[in-house]
Amino acid sequence: MLANSTRLFCRGRLCLGMKPHSILETVLYASDIEQAVWFYHEVLGLEKPGGASDLMTYFRIDGNHVLLVFNPQESDKPGRDLPSHGPRGAGHIALRIEESDYDNWKKRMSSFGIGIEQEIDWEQEEGFAKGRSIYVRDPYGNSIELITGNIWES
Amino acid sequence: MLANSTRLFCRGRLCLGMKPHSILETVLYASDIEQAVWFYHEVLGLEKPGGASDLMTYFRIDGNHVLLVFNPQESDKPGRDLPSHGPRGAGHIALRIEESDYDNWKKRMSSFGIGIEQEIDWEQEEGFAKGRSIYVRDPYGNSIELITGNIWES
Repeated sequence: MLANSTRLFCRGRLCLGMKPHSILETVLYASDIEQAVWFYHEVLGLEKPGGASDLMTYFRIDGNHVLLVFNPQESDKPGRDLPSHGPRGAGHIALRIEESDYDNWKKRMSSFGIGIEQEIDWEQEEGFAKGRSIYVRDPYGNSIELITGNIWES
Repeated sequence: MLANSTRLFCRGRLCLGMKPHSILETVLYASDIEQAVWFYHEVLGLEKPGGASDLMTYFRIDGNHVLLVFNPQESDKPGRDLPSHGPRGAGHIALRIEESDYDNWKKRMSSFGIGIEQEIDWEQEEGFAKGRSIYVRDPYGNSIELITGNIWES
């Protein structure tokens, strides 16, 4: 049934290769937006081009990608202007850093009193390309990975 | 105190401009990984270069970016090989699509029996650049936005 529907719609040329080409918004959740601004802007150095509200704030990753941080207690309210969402509990993202900055990132974390939960050398793990990761927690408890290299390219 | 720590670490050249330059892993959660594969691979057309396990699967967005989908009941188990994470409830991401494909995306959603929760023309909203969005839900309930244009560029 599903396969048929797919064929039905995909017999025209327009369907060929129609897929999302990039991610515009990656989203994390944190109950204290001010603490999130501290962590992502002050500690990690991400650009904060706009303001912050009780609902959310955002950070520019590059010209085509933003990291949004929502307070789930606000963003999951039913009946708001946009579809509701707002999971509770620790999420995860991985941010790319330069290999040459790896040790300096550990120093920076230490200078902000942020503990390193784990380090991984992906070359030692099966199925991954070269790269190293530092895992820390943001103030809300999200697991933030700082990674050198693209371990998924193989 | 924090400001002092920052200055202390940032007086060397190495600190200048040290920030993550991109996101490697954007993460969503879903209790049924098989359903996630159906939605992100079959419906949205994202490339699935690897397998799927009870724990997770992943999709390639482009050469430098992957979307990981974890089962939170597995990924939040304490004592696993990597830091635990696994929020419960609907998350959100926005995927970029071509403006010229906008109507075809609505048709494709319809052909898979997926309801459109909302549409937005961002040009009508204050503070955003030109773009249009289609909001749908993945099988787990995550709010997935298909968006034309970079509304955050202004």
